[in-house]
Amino acid sequence: MTETSIAPWPALRVTYRVTAENQSDLDARVESLLLEQTVELPRAALRDKFVLENIVGRLVSIKTIGADQHNVVIDFPISATGNDPAQFLNVLFGNSSIQDHVALADFKLPSAKEWPEQEKALPGPQFGTAGLRNITGVHGRALTSTALKPIGLSTERLALLCGLFASAGIDIIKDDHGLANQSFHPFIDRVRACLKAVREANRKTGRQSIYVPNLMGTPSVVLEQLKFAQDEGVCAVMIAPMLLGLPFMAEIVANHATLPVIAHPSFGGATRIAPELLYGKLFPLYGADATIFANFGGRFSYSKETCRKLADALTAPDEPSLIPTLPMPAGGIKYRNVADVLAFYGNEVILLIGGGLYEAGDDAALSARSVEFVKHVTEFKP
Amino acid sequence: MTETSIAPWPALRVTYRVTAENQSDLDARVESLLLEQTVELPRAALRDKFVLENIVGRLVSIKTIGADQHNVVIDFPISATGNDPAQFLNVLFGNSSIQDHVALADFKLPSAKEWPEQEKALPGPQFGTAGLRNITGVHGRALTSTALKPIGLSTERLALLCGLFASAGIDIIKDDHGLANQSFHPFIDRVRACLKAVREANRKTGRQSIYVPNLMGTPSVVLEQLKFAQDEGVCAVMIAPMLLGLPFMAEIVANHATLPVIAHPSFGGATRIAPELLYGKLFPLYGADATIFANFGGRFSYSKETCRKLADALTAPDEPSLIPTLPMPAGGIKYRNVADVLAFYGNEVILLIGGGLYEAGDDAALSARSVEFVKHVTEFKP
Repeated sequence: MTETSIAPWPALRVTYRVTAENQSDLDARVESLLLEQTVELPRAALRDKFVLENIVGRLVSIKTIGADQHNVVIDFPISATGNDPAQFLNVLFGNSSIQDHVALADFKLPSAKEWPEQEKALPGPQFGTAGLRNITGVHGRALTSTALKPIGLSTERLALLCGLFASAGIDIIKDDHGLANQSFHPFIDRVRACLKAVREANRKTGRQSIYVPNLMGTPSVVLEQLKFAQDEGVCAVMIAPMLLGLPFMAEIVANHATLPVIAHPSFGGATRIAPELLYGKLFPLYGADATIFANFGGRFSYSKETCRKLADALTAPDEPSLIPTLPMPAGGIKYRNVADVLAFYGNEVILLIGGGLYEAGDDAALSARSVEFVKHVTEFKP
Repeated sequence: MTETSIAPWPALRVTYRVTAENQSDLDARVESLLLEQTVELPRAALRDKFVLENIVGRLVSIKTIGADQHNVVIDFPISATGNDPAQFLNVLFGNSSIQDHVALADFKLPSAKEWPEQEKALPGPQFGTAGLRNITGVHGRALTSTALKPIGLSTERLALLCGLFASAGIDIIKDDHGLANQSFHPFIDRVRACLKAVREANRKTGRQSIYVPNLMGTPSVVLEQLKFAQDEGVCAVMIAPMLLGLPFMAEIVANHATLPVIAHPSFGGATRIAPELLYGKLFPLYGADATIFANFGGRFSYSKETCRKLADALTAPDEPSLIPTLPMPAGGIKYRNVADVLAFYGNEVILLIGGGLYEAGDDAALSARSVEFVKHVTEFKP
C-alpha cells in the first residue's frame, strides 16, 4: 500500500497499533481503518466525490515496530467530529475499538488555527496544576493525598477520618471512588460533615487542606451533587469519566464546574467484559430495546458461539426483570450471506445490513437489492 | 482458600474470569477481588464490624476451567451500589477492569423481592421486542434494517436514500452511528427530511417503516435532540451508550424517552487505548485537572515506562491547548515505597496513598503515619 499525499483539510492524526502477520493482512486492516472511522462503507460503495476527498481517512505512514506489530498513522478530517465531545471519540476509536487487532496508540489534534472550535469538543482542564496548587497553597513540592474509605462506615466516622488526615497536614482528602449516595453515608450529609472537619483542622494547622467529594450517578444526579458541593464551598470534585461518560465530563467542565475536577480511572478497562454480557445483559439492563453488535464473520471478531449467547441473552433474558429485546447483528454482513445469518438467528432478529446493500451500485441497483433483501426476509421460513 | 457461607444480605453475584498460573497467585487475586470492588483496603486495615460483615465481598466458588483460567464467583452487597446506575457499574467492574488478569464474565442480580429498588439503578428496556414489532407492524418474521451513510453526504441525499430504503420496504432505517450534528447534515434538518421521506414512502407502500436518528453529544445536547425527535414524531432513537455513558442511557430511558432506544456498540472496546493516552491525554482534553491512575508496582499492571509517559503527558502536555495538570499515581502504594515513588515522579505529583496509611492501625497510629507521610513529602528534595 502506498502512502497518500498530505490531507488538504485540518486533520485529526491518529496512530493505531495494528497486529498483522503478513502484508496482505496488514493492507486489509489499514484499508479497513481508513474507512471504518468515518464512512463505514466499502470503498467500492463510495461514489460521492466530496466524501471521497474530504471524509475518508488518509494514510500518512506505516512503520513496522515488531514481528507482527505496526504503527499505522491516519489522518481523519476534523470536520467529521462535528466539534462534539462524543463524536470526537467516535471518530477516534468508535468501531475500531471492537476490532481485536487494533489498539489506539496516539493522536494529534489540528493546530488552534486549523481548528478554532476545539474547545466545543474538548474543553481541556480549566485549573490544572496551577489551580490545584493555589487552592491548597502548596508550591515547590509534591502534594499529598489520601482517600476516605471504606464504603459502609458511618458519616460521622468518615468525617472523623477526614479531620484526622487534615490535622496531619495531608493536602487533598478525597472520597473513595466507591462512596456514592449509599444509605450508610448519604452524599449531602457526608459533604457537610467532611467539610466541617477539614475546616476545623485547617484553622488549627493554618494549612489549606481540601476535601474532595466523589460525584457519582446519572447526569441529573451528578449536576445536583456538583451544585450542592459548590454551594457548600467545596474546592474540587472527583468523577470517574469512564463510568459517567467522557462527553458528560466535558459538559461538566465547560458549563457547570467552577472548581478543579479530578478524574478517576474506574471502568477504564471496560472492554474486558464478555461481549455477551456487555451487549446481551448490561445494555438492556440500562434500557436498550434493541442492541447492535458485531456479527460473526464480518469486520469484527466475535465467534458464532458468542453471537448465539448474545442473541439468546437479548431474546430470552435470564434476569426476570428484563423483557425480551431484539438483537441487531451488523458489521459487514455481505448480501450473499443474508440467508445464512437469517438461518442462524431465526425470526427474532433485526437484520442490519448497510455496505452489503450500498455495494449494489447506483440508486436503481441499490433499490432493487433492497427490495430483494426485504423479500428474502419476508419469505423466510425458519 | 476456603469458600465462605452464603451472604446474609441481598447480593450481586459476579463471575470473574481470573488468569492465574498457580495456587498462590489465584489466592491473592481472589482476595484482591473480594476487597477491590467495595472496601478497596487491605483486610488488615478493616476494623469496622459492620463493614467486615456487610460490605466486603464473599467468595461463593472457584472453578478451574482451563490451564490458567478460573471462574471466580463473588457476592457483593447490593447495598454498595446505592441503587445508582453509575455506582452499580463501579461495584461490578470499576477498578477490577484495569487489572490485566481479570475479565468480567457474568453476573446475577438479586431477586425483585430482595432488591425492590432495582429500577432506580437499572431501568431495563421499556418497549423491547413487542414494542418494536408493534411500531413497525412486523410480526412473525425477522425485521430488516439498514443505515444511512456515509458522513459527508448532503441532507437531501440522505433523505433520498431514506425514502429509497423505505420504498423498498426496509423496516428500520437508522442513521449511521457517525451521523452526529456535522455541518454536512445538521441533526434538525436531517431528522425533518428523513421523516418526510419515510412517511411519503409509507403512504405508497402501506408499511410502517421507521427512521431512527442517532443521538450524539453531551447530555444536554442529546436531551435536546431527543425532545426534538419525539416532538417531530420519530418512533425510535439510537444511542451509543459506551460513548455517552451507560448511566446516561439509564436516565434517558427512565426519565426522558417515550420511544424505544436502540443501542450501538461504538467505543465498546475502549480499554485497548494505551494507558498513557487514555489517562494522559484524553482525560485532560475532556477537562480533568488531575488524573488518578494505577501506579507501577501496586495492585495494577502498568510498567514504570507507562507511568513515566503518562505523568509526562499530564505535566508537560504535547497538545498546545492543554495546560499542565497533575498526575495522581495510586492503587496500592505501600507506605515504605513512598520515597521511591516520590523520587520517580519528583514534585509535580499528587501522592495518593490510602491503604498504605490505613494499615498503620488504630486512629493514633493512622494519625502518626499521616503526619510522617506529610513530613516526608514536605522535606523531599528532588
